[in-house]
Amino acid sequence: MSDEMTEDRPLGVAVIGAGMAGAAHAAAWRAATTVRTPLPRPVRLVAVADIAEPLARHVAGRFGYERVETDWRALLDAADVDVVSVVVANRLHREIVEALLAAGKHVLCEKPLADTREDAEAMVAAAETAGPVARLGYTYRRAPGLAALRELVTSGALGEIVHLHGRYLADYACDPQAPMAWRFRGEPGSGALGDVGSHLLDAAEFLAGPMRAVSGARFRTVVAERPLPLTATVGHGKVAVSEETEPVTNDDWAGFTADFDGAAGTFEASRVAAGHPNGLRLEISCRAGAAVWDQENPAEIQVHTQEIGGAAAASNGFRTVKLGPEHPYIGEGYAMAAPGIGVGQNDGFIFQARAFLEEVVGLDEEQSWPRCASFAEGLRTLDLIEAVVASAGDEGRAVSVAR
Amino acid sequence: MSDEMTEDRPLGVAVIGAGMAGAAHAAAWRAATTVRTPLPRPVRLVAVADIAEPLARHVAGRFGYERVETDWRALLDAADVDVVSVVVANRLHREIVEALLAAGKHVLCEKPLADTREDAEAMVAAAETAGPVARLGYTYRRAPGLAALRELVTSGALGEIVHLHGRYLADYACDPQAPMAWRFRGEPGSGALGDVGSHLLDAAEFLAGPMRAVSGARFRTVVAERPLPLTATVGHGKVAVSEETEPVTNDDWAGFTADFDGAAGTFEASRVAAGHPNGLRLEISCRAGAAVWDQENPAEIQVHTQEIGGAAAASNGFRTVKLGPEHPYIGEGYAMAAPGIGVGQNDGFIFQARAFLEEVVGLDEEQSWPRCASFAEGLRTLDLIEAVVASAGDEGRAVSVAR
Amino acid sequence: MSDEMTEDRPLGVAVIGAGMAGAAHAAAWRAATTVRTPLPRPVRLVAVADIAEPLARHVAGRFGYERVETDWRALLDAADVDVVSVVVANRLHREIVEALLAAGKHVLCEKPLADTREDAEAMVAAAETAGPVARLGYTYRRAPGLAALRELVTSGALGEIVHLHGRYLADYACDPQAPMAWRFRGEPGSGALGDVGSHLLDAAEFLAGPMRAVSGARFRTVVAERPLPLTATVGHGKVAVSEETEPVTNDDWAGFTADFDGAAGTFEASRVAAGHPNGLRLEISCRAGAAVWDQENPAEIQVHTQEIGGAAAASNGFRTVKLGPEHPYIGEGYAMAAPGIGVGQNDGFIFQARAFLEEVVGLDEEQSWPRCASFAEGLRTLDLIEAVVASAGDEGRAVSVAR
Amino acid sequence: MSDEMTEDRPLGVAVIGAGMAGAAHAAAWRAATTVRTPLPRPVRLVAVADIAEPLARHVAGRFGYERVETDWRALLDAADVDVVSVVVANRLHREIVEALLAAGKHVLCEKPLADTREDAEAMVAAAETAGPVARLGYTYRRAPGLAALRELVTSGALGEIVHLHGRYLADYACDPQAPMAWRFRGEPGSGALGDVGSHLLDAAEFLAGPMRAVSGARFRTVVAERPLPLTATVGHGKVAVSEETEPVTNDDWAGFTADFDGAAGTFEASRVAAGHPNGLRLEISCRAGAAVWDQENPAEIQVHTQEIGGAAAASNGFRTVKLGPEHPYIGEGYAMAAPGIGVGQNDGFIFQARAFLEEVVGLDEEQSWPRCASFAEGLRTLDLIEAVVASAGDEGRAVSVAR
Repeated sequence: MSDEMTEDRPLGVAVIGAGMAGAAHAAAWRAATTVRTPLPRPVRLVAVADIAEPLARHVAGRFGYERVETDWRALLDAADVDVVSVVVANRLHREIVEALLAAGKHVLCEKPLADTREDAEAMVAAAETAGPVARLGYTYRRAPGLAALRELVTSGALGEIVHLHGRYLADYACDPQAPMAWRFRGEPGSGALGDVGSHLLDAAEFLAGPMRAVSGARFRTVVAERPLPLTATVGHGKVAVSEETEPVTNDDWAGFTADFDGAAGTFEASRVAAGHPNGLRLEISCRAGAAVWDQENPAEIQVHTQEIGGAAAASNGFRTVKLGPEHPYIGEGYAMAAPGIGVGQNDGFIFQARAFLEEVVGLDEEQSWPRCASFAEGLRTLDLIEAVVASAGDEGRAVSVAR
Repeated sequence: MSDEMTEDRPLGVAVIGAGMAGAAHAAAWRAATTVRTPLPRPVRLVAVADIAEPLARHVAGRFGYERVETDWRALLDAADVDVVSVVVANRLHREIVEALLAAGKHVLCEKPLADTREDAEAMVAAAETAGPVARLGYTYRRAPGLAALRELVTSGALGEIVHLHGRYLADYACDPQAPMAWRFRGEPGSGALGDVGSHLLDAAEFLAGPMRAVSGARFRTVVAERPLPLTATVGHGKVAVSEETEPVTNDDWAGFTADFDGAAGTFEASRVAAGHPNGLRLEISCRAGAAVWDQENPAEIQVHTQEIGGAAAASNGFRTVKLGPEHPYIGEGYAMAAPGIGVGQNDGFIFQARAFLEEVVGLDEEQSWPRCASFAEGLRTLDLIEAVVASAGDEGRAVSVAR
Repeated sequence: MSDEMTEDRPLGVAVIGAGMAGAAHAAAWRAATTVRTPLPRPVRLVAVADIAEPLARHVAGRFGYERVETDWRALLDAADVDVVSVVVANRLHREIVEALLAAGKHVLCEKPLADTREDAEAMVAAAETAGPVARLGYTYRRAPGLAALRELVTSGALGEIVHLHGRYLADYACDPQAPMAWRFRGEPGSGALGDVGSHLLDAAEFLAGPMRAVSGARFRTVVAERPLPLTATVGHGKVAVSEETEPVTNDDWAGFTADFDGAAGTFEASRVAAGHPNGLRLEISCRAGAAVWDQENPAEIQVHTQEIGGAAAASNGFRTVKLGPEHPYIGEGYAMAAPGIGVGQNDGFIFQARAFLEEVVGLDEEQSWPRCASFAEGLRTLDLIEAVVASAGDEGRAVSVAR
Repeated sequence: MSDEMTEDRPLGVAVIGAGMAGAAHAAAWRAATTVRTPLPRPVRLVAVADIAEPLARHVAGRFGYERVETDWRALLDAADVDVVSVVVANRLHREIVEALLAAGKHVLCEKPLADTREDAEAMVAAAETAGPVARLGYTYRRAPGLAALRELVTSGALGEIVHLHGRYLADYACDPQAPMAWRFRGEPGSGALGDVGSHLLDAAEFLAGPMRAVSGARFRTVVAERPLPLTATVGHGKVAVSEETEPVTNDDWAGFTADFDGAAGTFEASRVAAGHPNGLRLEISCRAGAAVWDQENPAEIQVHTQEIGGAAAASNGFRTVKLGPEHPYIGEGYAMAAPGIGVGQNDGFIFQARAFLEEVVGLDEEQSWPRCASFAEGLRTLDLIEAVVASAGDEGRAVSVAR
């Protein structure tokens, strides 16, 4: 990765896409050098690109980027840009990422990798042959609690996972008057499953290893049609709507069961779960214990350790473990680092950006925070979604997901 | 049901089976007259029958029953016995219940109705043609929170259920040294699914209406073999074990998805869920809200009501509703009746016994607490279990459950 | 205690006072023989006495007592009555208890012992010289969680208590239209402090040992006047009210600090705490851990054990310990006994009645459940209340409470 | 505040003190321009000053400050420094702040204002006569939940506060082997009360208005002596200790009661509360409801609204309100802004820095986030601490705190 000619030059960073998630990326690059030890190379916040110039200008100004571009292609030849976040509509990922990699830019692509298998496979191939770093954004892997729970499972302290339950309950589509948008169009599987469910699938495998098959897949479109918006909208805010409606074609809810090596589980993803603004949660039952992680308290886990055969087995309930500075994301991630200081979802973007930069500057894995997800892992999520869709289309029959 | 010749005679009650659940029945008949308004006819605690005489004697003495029988057949001709609880091994239910009904006894049979469809159908037929009352014990229907949540759903306050999750997590089989017992033998579906899962299935339909199909069924036998006990055991207590083992043949865990009318859901039943002594829980997402009931706080519900389109929608989180004396099970069920007084699982047996007696003495449905489950509803649970088993046996394919 | 002439005769039980708490006593005597091992002597439910005959008749009928009395004095000479609960207005306790003890009856008096020190001291003297058993009802001592927490403290597992917080938050007086009643009359200290606070004081000393001084006492009368009721009322139910009002003269809220041997704490009692139907809660911080008991989950404790100097100290959070059958109140107190079965406040009355009967029949302390509170302990609570009142009357100055 | 000559020049920021809280300030200035709308004037991160140069260099490098100083006096004449955080030992605050104000620098001083009344009064006087902005850092006021709860109280929706309980439970001094340090020296009141208690006192008055008197004050020194450290230490980390010990002279725990206008409350501050890394919590009972805020979930409040006289009053429990983007701190404070995204304690420093800058650049109060606390409010906290100390020294007698 080292480019001897430019090593002393700051790493130039750009973000393509200035919506809410783009802003989170822009903020993350800005903060990424303030966590852990000093990065061996300085970072320069160069550009924000968005076809909507005022939006690009707003984000660039807010987070201190030097310039804006209304055409992302301007970044391809920009000598001062080394690292690019791609945070645009999923169907545009492939073209942009391929061009950036071909131009020698390091790319952090927001999840999901792509809308189609064809695009995803092409992107994986491009990443494998490219010189630059190509990574995918799965920020929940950076939640201290989920990371710590994974370490706990790996350590063997809880014994083998025997069954698990995972869910991502969101409420952003509860309101039937929320206007039609791109997220409500597409095939079943591209709705709640593709949106919040892709996070769930990645987090579940991150924690419990690969799924071998999915079964019993069910989809529901709860709000069958939505009013057309009268004006364009960014994010999930309320806008004035027309009396005209358009059918919602993809899933508001998806449920399925899954086989792992040994373990099995039940899963659900919803965007119509009233009262759950952001309810990603994983519960594992193990041979010698059990544990829970919930995104609403991202730096906390609930842990039960079974004292098999012990007199006090029944008395040994779930502990609420608030992670403190002994965990790297907390100890190295905050100025004030203590248990109970509070950790937010935006911070996951920072830790991810940091890990990406560490790879770009050539820190080896032992010196770095865990690497970001690979494009292949993003394709993996597509495989899983496809399998869920196939199961739903075949009366719930088990569909294996080779790995 | 009224028998004019004997109306003034006390109703004589007997319990067949003096294990833990039998004791709960014995206790319940004793307390059943102390809740609500006076029952129009006194109750006499006549007999406890168990092949293990010391056990029968213990329960009879503890709860004030007049005599013990070591052969349940002695109750058939007992002129002083009108009402009988049947709380024995499931495979014995049919013979005993049919004989009791034929002898004119009112029967409250503990769940599940039977081990086989053949037995269950015969019992339903017997119940339909018999004069006496024949009912099945599903005590969780008596939990104030679940009952109140059902009323809330029926009232329409939350809107139609759109998706739900149900689970019964128990931990009694976590210890691999817990000895082999009848509950670990049998076909898949007769383990966690048949034991705790039957409660879950009944509670789910009690709350959300009938399932139309089940899919994606998965079973897991987590503890593959168990040591043989060195001595007989009652309940789930620890006993000395042999070095010899026997394979466990049924399910420690079962998971599946289900279609309702409109709604869909994910479900799991486990007896190897460390840290969950008795975790029956139902979570519903509705068009205008959401709610949760958990057996661990049986008189409490979590309720979220979505203010669709309202400014404060996002601020309107789950309320913890502690049911108070305005709910009949609390207001009429306890001497001290107030919100937060605490309600236990044993109390459900009392409320059930009370409802059963109300039917026996001829109170109409408006005057009574809700009727106990019918034998047909017990057969229904078998239908559901069979469908789950069929789905598991057919690669998770959807299996419809006609009703 | 043994009366050789009557040993084979059942113990006859009566209850004076048929209000809500009287009913709880009536129910408790009925159930007291159904917990633990058989009591060596049978119990006969003889009489309920109340000046309001319909009320007495209702309670007697509901719980199976043989007869009613409208004058409690009828019990003095009743040869078939051995044990009497006194559950009437506090100011009547002394006369009734003294007469019963003089007549040779065993007396379980509901808390608080008396309204005045003079009465209380006389009752203590009467109890000391009397042959029969005289005990006071502090039912929260029977909550499994509080009992277990006390054992945990005594075991030394948490180290010495260093500070604690206790509160009893109730909401029964929130509604300013709730009518005037005896409980709203009297000197400061006789309101929230004397009612729910007396439970708090007893529970605090039960857990943490004797207070040495109380300080900084503050009272608040939040609802300054209340409408007169148009009709008599029992319990806390709603009744029609007049437009005429009467001032509330005692405390709706009381707060103070307390010195123990070594430890110190803050305490509050309220009857105007919206949202807290029955919020008795004790939190202790110890040298090697911490714990919480809350009446709303009476069979549960939260326990934190500090691993001093250990690397994982910060990771070792509060465990939710659900007590199971290994605790006597659960293992011996219920037909179905398991962790998470649910325990209610009414059950405390049963366990208390059982312990009382065990003392009456002569079981020694090792064979028995813990003895009920003594009259001296009831006087102790009065001492504490007096000290709080004295502190409030002297600008919050510390007032010692000798013991 | 406007300085016409320099308006276009960036605001230069410096931080004095590079310990953990200093780092939080350094991080906050860096992020302060990334929240809300653009600040009318750019910000330049100029200097970090600390007598320990490596520490200063580390913080400067981490957060992008241009230079370090080992003598804070170098900032007095620095033309490129306009705004200075003072985050050093409390006893140094006065000298530094006075000099900075005299030199025309805007000063944000970390709490507590000073160690002595004399210093504090001098600082208040200096602030009043100075041209520059002088503010005190009370970051918990920036917790979205506490801010929202204050708004809720002010709105009248819950009615007047009738009683409250506040606590700040910390565990950093639990370990008796944690070495002696400046925080364990000083008069009673300078320990837990002065450290975490000062936050509690400010938060309590922020929420409930001024205290009128404090009473019943109690102090406890739980760990009577501590080993001397073998090496210097920063923050609360573990260090090697000597066998020599030194007595701890100030309070590990403080408790007291307080009178407000109308309301009253109980309060405690602890640094030896095992299991509570950072437990600041306020609970209010009001005439028409109740609410709780806990620092461990800083963007969440528990709210109960009493429906006085309504049938469902008892059913209306506490709601868990997760604040979302409709609250300014969330909606304007994060790139990804949604309910449940997670908010951390470090973020409070950012919001505070932002509010400070808004005042410096001359935004009026309506355009700005709420102003930071004044020096007079810092003196107020000292008044309250003095009153608690005086009460403790006078047998708990009430001590009024004029305002």
